[in-house]
Amino acid sequence: MRFGRIATPDGMTFAVIEGDVADRNEMTAKAIVGTPFTEPEYTGKEYRLGDVKLLAPMLPSKVVAIGRNYADHVAEVFQKSADDLPPTLFIKPPTSVVGPDAAIKIPDFATRVEFEGELAVVIGRPCKNVKAEDWKSVVAGFTIVNDVSSRDLQFADGQWARAKGIDTFCPLGPWIETDVDAFELDDLPIKAHLTHEGVTTTKQDSNSNQMIMKMGEIIEFITASMTLLPGDVICTGSPAGTEAMVPGDSIAVEVPGIGTLENPVERA
Amino acid sequence: MRFGRIATPDGMTFAVIEGDVADRNEMTAKAIVGTPFTEPEYTGKEYRLGDVKLLAPMLPSKVVAIGRNYADHVAEVFQKSADDLPPTLFIKPPTSVVGPDAAIKIPDFATRVEFEGELAVVIGRPCKNVKAEDWKSVVAGFTIVNDVSSRDLQFADGQWARAKGIDTFCPLGPWIETDVDAFELDDLPIKAHLTHEGVTTTKQDSNSNQMIMKMGEIIEFITASMTLLPGDVICTGSPAGTEAMVPGDSIAVEVPGIGTLENPVERA
Repeated sequence: MRFGRIATPDGMTFAVIEGDVADRNEMTAKAIVGTPFTEPEYTGKEYRLGDVKLLAPMLPSKVVAIGRNYADHVAEVFQKSADDLPPTLFIKPPTSVVGPDAAIKIPDFATRVEFEGELAVVIGRPCKNVKAEDWKSVVAGFTIVNDVSSRDLQFADGQWARAKGIDTFCPLGPWIETDVDAFELDDLPIKAHLTHEGVTTTKQDSNSNQMIMKMGEIIEFITASMTLLPGDVICTGSPAGTEAMVPGDSIAVEVPGIGTLENPVERA
Repeated sequence: MRFGRIATPDGMTFAVIEGDVADRNEMTAKAIVGTPFTEPEYTGKEYRLGDVKLLAPMLPSKVVAIGRNYADHVAEVFQKSADDLPPTLFIKPPTSVVGPDAAIKIPDFATRVEFEGELAVVIGRPCKNVKAEDWKSVVAGFTIVNDVSSRDLQFADGQWARAKGIDTFCPLGPWIETDVDAFELDDLPIKAHLTHEGVTTTKQDSNSNQMIMKMGEIIEFITASMTLLPGDVICTGSPAGTEAMVPGDSIAVEVPGIGTLENPVERA
């Protein structure tokens, strides 16, 4: 089941999204009472998705991200082996989150801003000290995240909070797919397509089977330190192929079984 | 005016705290309607502070911290000059926040956990792109933070999110002092007193005049990237004197004009 959050003439609401992902405007959004963390109770209101605005599917209390979780991305960014630079945690602030189709806004002091297409996890219940094998019991579903990163600030600051925490630098969506069992994490493609001057090129073309720290390990690792709350988002790391974006570009991150998260790029 | 948050037999509430800080149990907490961001509207209920539980004065949507903002602390932790390692931003998750007297709980994988006593700022209104000279217009008040840091994990991870983001690693309080004009940031003492095996020793004894990035610069720097929201907390950096704590210790951070934030240390 797909849960999204929509802005309608009747206000903002969570909704169950149904229909053919390939024809998004013709999909149906069925408004629900409350949140995606329980069986949906429908309000009876339905919208054509093309007639409403799809928002980030969740407003997380925190976005916890795994850095350096794909060896080829470690090599391209740090010119080092993943053995020397193992996965590490960082946090993106809630104010960096935007939804599908919302602009990534580049401030003038960020001179090299890159996309990072990633599989994202939405937490479904408060949890601490989760064992790796129990990870599905705390997950509400999967979505897509673009861990937008100002590479120049990332290296200048040492800490990544600013480079990855700028307003609009965490596009999230388009919705949460709750049927976690339908995903084969041993073989889930993750792609990013950059449109520059009207030409679209696939820049990231990887697979979740390249993740160094696997899903269960990630959730065990994070929850050994931090309580996760419903709606919290985990970014599982970016594969290689990240590149700079400039105003006028558009960046689409694609994960089969979820869909595509596309965002235009603008000057702030 | 001092705003705190208290747990009472009648529920949790914000309150105006009055009386002599030196005799905290005898202070009075006057419950208010709503939040500390407007003129207080009193409910009429009053409590002796010794009869209620003082909580963290705010549940921030984010805690943004300035690292390496005191040259002597840069030297003691990194063995480098602050010219080589300028101030940098990091984020502590909301789940790390605890109130006065709540235990700092050290997990077994954190082998060297240090206190960092700091002046903290509570934001009073949504803001972005604040000019340094306008900083007071967005601030609700000052409080105290202990930026508890697992020094071993900080160096092992490179990124500080885990080392400084563990549950209970952000003691905050005891309350928010809103009379910002009463503080002389050119000469505001910041101290930390560690009690170990019954003996109390002053370990940090510095002054906000040692801050490399000053208050206005900090708020201009952060809000150039991130929107700050009411209740968000800024940690302004720790001076030298940080040291390891062990279960059984107690750590008290003192800022004149605010008071003292004391927390016991326990094994998680």
